[in-house]
Amino acid sequence: MDMHALTRELQQKNITKIVMLVADGLGGLPLSPGGKTELETAQTPNLDALAVRGVQGLSIPVKPGIAPGSGPGHLGLFGYDPLQYQIGRGALEATGIGFQLQTGDVAIRCNFCTLDEAGNIVDRRAGRISSEESAPIACSLRQITIPGVEIFVEPVKEHRFVVVFRGQGLGGNVKDTDPQATGVPPLQPIAADSASLRTAQVAKEFLTQAGKILHDQKNANFHTMRGFAARPNLPSYQEVYGLKAAAIAVYPMYKGLASLVGMDIVGNATTLDEQLQVLKQKWNDYDFFFIHFKYTDSTGEDGNFLEKVRRIEELDACLPQLTSLKPDVLIVTGDHSTPSYLKSHSWHPVPTLLVSDCCRPDPHQTFGETTAITGGLGQFEAQYLMLLALSNAGRMGKYGA
Amino acid sequence: MDMHALTRELQQKNITKIVMLVADGLGGLPLSPGGKTELETAQTPNLDALAVRGVQGLSIPVKPGIAPGSGPGHLGLFGYDPLQYQIGRGALEATGIGFQLQTGDVAIRCNFCTLDEAGNIVDRRAGRISSEESAPIACSLRQITIPGVEIFVEPVKEHRFVVVFRGQGLGGNVKDTDPQATGVPPLQPIAADSASLRTAQVAKEFLTQAGKILHDQKNANFHTMRGFAARPNLPSYQEVYGLKAAAIAVYPMYKGLASLVGMDIVGNATTLDEQLQVLKQKWNDYDFFFIHFKYTDSTGEDGNFLEKVRRIEELDACLPQLTSLKPDVLIVTGDHSTPSYLKSHSWHPVPTLLVSDCCRPDPHQTFGETTAITGGLGQFEAQYLMLLALSNAGRMGKYGA
Repeated sequence: MDMHALTRELQQKNITKIVMLVADGLGGLPLSPGGKTELETAQTPNLDALAVRGVQGLSIPVKPGIAPGSGPGHLGLFGYDPLQYQIGRGALEATGIGFQLQTGDVAIRCNFCTLDEAGNIVDRRAGRISSEESAPIACSLRQITIPGVEIFVEPVKEHRFVVVFRGQGLGGNVKDTDPQATGVPPLQPIAADSASLRTAQVAKEFLTQAGKILHDQKNANFHTMRGFAARPNLPSYQEVYGLKAAAIAVYPMYKGLASLVGMDIVGNATTLDEQLQVLKQKWNDYDFFFIHFKYTDSTGEDGNFLEKVRRIEELDACLPQLTSLKPDVLIVTGDHSTPSYLKSHSWHPVPTLLVSDCCRPDPHQTFGETTAITGGLGQFEAQYLMLLALSNAGRMGKYGA
Repeated sequence: MDMHALTRELQQKNITKIVMLVADGLGGLPLSPGGKTELETAQTPNLDALAVRGVQGLSIPVKPGIAPGSGPGHLGLFGYDPLQYQIGRGALEATGIGFQLQTGDVAIRCNFCTLDEAGNIVDRRAGRISSEESAPIACSLRQITIPGVEIFVEPVKEHRFVVVFRGQGLGGNVKDTDPQATGVPPLQPIAADSASLRTAQVAKEFLTQAGKILHDQKNANFHTMRGFAARPNLPSYQEVYGLKAAAIAVYPMYKGLASLVGMDIVGNATTLDEQLQVLKQKWNDYDFFFIHFKYTDSTGEDGNFLEKVRRIEELDACLPQLTSLKPDVLIVTGDHSTPSYLKSHSWHPVPTLLVSDCCRPDPHQTFGETTAITGGLGQFEAQYLMLLALSNAGRMGKYGA
């Protein structure tokens, strides 16, 4: 059974506030057996104080053994079955820069690249040209016209930009043209299903025209297309949970994800401190706040154990600003683990802490991967976390008579 | 969503080796509350050393409270949802003696029995006649012909043999003819669904002809038919996991199970020591090794607590031969519990240990049912174990962008 069929039926109005603080890639690994993880190494007096009042456990992002990308990782936390709902990278990126995708749009991540005279890729990122240099070149592609298709071109950062095709009969299933190698030419866009044949044709025509427009550029004399994706059809937080929800994030991808489930993107914070100021400003306007903290993931991906520890301590130090608002339900979790030992997203379940006046506290006095094993939440699939949030917030009635 | 849809998509090549050591019926019970289980009673210094480096938990073979047979028990461990995929006993037995079942075949386990003059069963196993005596009698049934059906008769051991029907429109759902009692006649083969009506007819004709052929035998003057089963349609390890897999087992049933999922049956070992020699010989030829140890189950079924303890110690003593090969992922588990207290397969979750350089070790220093309760793997359905194996072996990419 779809959990949203339940929450649609059981949701109740209340004035309670829920905060979900997502430390991206929070879970980690010790560097050697018997050692401590990043979270266990960090000095986290505020998290530990919350652990005393709260209940912890391990969140399985998708299924045991599955390492998720950011999309499925967040969908799970937001309560959307990540195996049922899938978001393509292009759709994520477009939404993340504030582009309002419509149903039927196909979004594509594009990278400027450098071709040699033979047409082979010399640099897959066009020398990582600056955003200042790249943006006008991307905008020059807006002159491209293809009959029957509305085309949007939006600069992102450095060598990256987004293209969106809007029109009838455009499927999102087209293969990347980036060969992931240099010394070879870009690939042709090839449809991976019959519903996407026209998209592939449109993309091919776009690339042909782009090649002519970009021909005389020094570095950015061509571009690749990756992550073709139609807009996913996700029901909104308002509809499935009855929550007016706000997202306070720094990075485009997480803003994009939140907006796909109907959260408002609020503020323009660039630091955690600023994010918490936005939280304070918007406190009376929303029922639910998603706060995204990126650096526990990026330091993990860098393989920088000590820097990840430091970022966790930074997060901990900001918590009093959050708890002073007295959220009725506070959740601290991650969308997946990013152990610095692996330098990548991993499948390990994520330490998760829930605090409310009616959670059933477990005996733990600290918060970490090892204590979470025997925490009161047990091991659970992330997609159930929102049910716990709603119930702890007095926002869900009982099921059945 | 079918997990194999995921593993097909996410599987990655690697040179890592995975070993799954299945101690059949490993889980047990204390003889009285407060006591220790068989595994906890056994002296297992090698398993305990692995517990320090590894992570343990409890594997639920099918669902909580379900005691599985060997078929679903192993299917779960192999990553095939045991409620979706079902293997009939006849199909298992046929495959286990090396018979290559084809799609559409129906295999049947047959037992010679002794009838009295009134046609009632006097001995359900025909005095457990020797294999030497029984084999030629079984082969005499090869003269049976039924229009439109190809018939195979293969001796097994003692009073047992296998019959396979090959032809069009043969369903596998026919009821046993063994009444499980003496003093009554064998039952008629009755179809349990309409797709199996013809199979029941064929079986009836087979029994009629067999009755005439066997009429003058002293003990084996008739036979029963049990475990009618069509060949299950299981995708292969190579396809769903990208693993070249070998099975090192002693008993036919486990060889049969492994071959149904596309494992090669290697070696001709008759002892655990020989199995580990085969492992060493074949080490470079395969990615995945399934090693089956029968005696933890058979001693449990005998209700012999101390003998099961001894067999666990025998297993433990052999482990250095295995670990010296340095598998990237080593899993020690069971297909189900067989507590000597119950003298049967049971539903209790099975202590399971996973060791890899990127598992997240839990604090346990020993391996047993009680420690596994608070192990880092938690309680999980066996069908997810292969996902964990693949991820720990660096053989699975991340899901979604």
